[in-house]
Amino acid sequence: VVAAADWGTSHLRVWLLNGEGEPIAERRSNEGLSAAVTDGFPAVFERVLRSMDAPHDLPAVICGMAGAKQGWIEAPYVATPTTIAGIFDSAVAIPSTHRAIRLMPGIAQKKRDAPEVMRGEETQLAGAVAELAAESQLVCLPGTHSKWVQVEKGVVRGFASFLTGELYAVLSTSSILRHTIGRNNAVSHDSPTFASHFRDALVNPQDLTGRLFRLRAAELLYGMAPGDAAAALSGLLIGAEFASARPWERSPGAKVLLIASGRLGRLYAEALRIANCDVTAVDADQTVRAGLFAAARHHFRLRAAKAIRDSA
Amino acid sequence: VVAAADWGTSHLRVWLLNGEGEPIAERRSNEGLSAAVTDGFPAVFERVLRSMDAPHDLPAVICGMAGAKQGWIEAPYVATPTTIAGIFDSAVAIPSTHRAIRLMPGIAQKKRDAPEVMRGEETQLAGAVAELAAESQLVCLPGTHSKWVQVEKGVVRGFASFLTGELYAVLSTSSILRHTIGRNNAVSHDSPTFASHFRDALVNPQDLTGRLFRLRAAELLYGMAPGDAAAALSGLLIGAEFASARPWERSPGAKVLLIASGRLGRLYAEALRIANCDVTAVDADQTVRAGLFAAARHHFRLRAAKAIRDSA
Repeated sequence: VVAAADWGTSHLRVWLLNGEGEPIAERRSNEGLSAAVTDGFPAVFERVLRSMDAPHDLPAVICGMAGAKQGWIEAPYVATPTTIAGIFDSAVAIPSTHRAIRLMPGIAQKKRDAPEVMRGEETQLAGAVAELAAESQLVCLPGTHSKWVQVEKGVVRGFASFLTGELYAVLSTSSILRHTIGRNNAVSHDSPTFASHFRDALVNPQDLTGRLFRLRAAELLYGMAPGDAAAALSGLLIGAEFASARPWERSPGAKVLLIASGRLGRLYAEALRIANCDVTAVDADQTVRAGLFAAARHHFRLRAAKAIRDSA
Repeated sequence: VVAAADWGTSHLRVWLLNGEGEPIAERRSNEGLSAAVTDGFPAVFERVLRSMDAPHDLPAVICGMAGAKQGWIEAPYVATPTTIAGIFDSAVAIPSTHRAIRLMPGIAQKKRDAPEVMRGEETQLAGAVAELAAESQLVCLPGTHSKWVQVEKGVVRGFASFLTGELYAVLSTSSILRHTIGRNNAVSHDSPTFASHFRDALVNPQDLTGRLFRLRAAELLYGMAPGDAAAALSGLLIGAEFASARPWERSPGAKVLLIASGRLGRLYAEALRIANCDVTAVDADQTVRAGLFAAARHHFRLRAAKAIRDSA
């Protein structure tokens, strides 16, 4: 048994995992980085674990922004290329009087002309390792800052990030497009408007910033509905991401491993289908838990075994 | 003598113009659309005119968002193609008990696959009419929503808008890049970082949303300075705009008329130079006044002449 946590900028998710890595308890809270900076990371973490009746000496593994410079303790980036074991080895031990805690590092691509960083996604990659045995595998992790990762024989070679999710958020809430899109317009993967705008951006990515304005013009001149505008914005931004990531060129057989959940996962799966890619989809929640559990087994071999005996 | 006003979303500028169209008084206020919706447009406008000692019966011409649906009175869009005189003819008379007021219309490009709208820029075009006599002229009006307008023999044929200025604003204040860019980092036209990122976006516009994230990564990995990050963001966004507008293809002799002011005007002039365009620059403040004065002469021939005699 082990505690596993994904601690991001705006959220904290904690699970208790059994000896097979299955979740036996879960807590989700809004105590992300900003909240934790105020109350203190140890206080927030211990409070959540107490609420789950976690033993006082239960070991824990944490991934995400908690390891950033402004986080609990900085867990420096591992540089590409790196193996999955190399990621585990670089986890940082957090001093604690009563429990062992490891904080996962991020990964950095230290190229002056293509600098890249990730925090949290490395743990999802570690959790999807069974799918990464291939000679060469392109992995897509959509989100606020979408990642496309090249993995060769289990080695993380390099990656690229896109501001896709964040652009959607700021444009739909803080730009002129907020009038056009309105609130609570979730985009469905089978929207024809999503598909047509995705295709358009794929072919004409240079027109992105112009197409964005045209959504407002389409509302003013033709009464484009908020749901359609949301689907169009999503299609344009994901299309621009694909036009740069070019999975059909960069992956043998255009095979892509998609690590995502819910609605966003369905949208990207549809986008990959339109782009003629061969998609294998795994759930992002499951992979992050699997990655944290693998890290726990890497670091806490004896403790985990003992915990299993105790609980038996 | 006539009152001339540019009434935008966030600002109101009012001038009193003499018989030659020269400004003899000016007021700038933050009473844009939102403020005016609260206090009422007539009250705000009359208050400003009173503060300038404008005669009670002085005629006035207004352009900008005051003519939008949520403005003072809607001044419907004129459709492309339109002559400059056609724009003046479509100005709307605002009912007033004591003075004649005309509100300039916007222009709309009513194409289902390329819908476009402008409000305010049509008056700048009217004010730059002396520069628009050529067979075919491409006009660039940078700003929150940059416009590139094709004018042929004085007829506005069509145009395209880009979210450039607004993307810069929301990304530098409301996205992850706010940490990277900081505040008050005005971009200078002779910044080598601006030039290199402009060139990069011009050649690889499909990578825009990825390049945006890399600014954050460059800060984290290499300590990119806020001023450089601001210049890079500006270069990337203006480069993407140029990659779509393609002035070197769409304008005979790559001649572009630039209507802009201050720092933004210098940035675009430099961008046009890098893109091997032949730029003629006119000041945006002067052209909006000239356009409003031309509209006043179109509508108030007699009143304006009388006012000049009165003031002599």
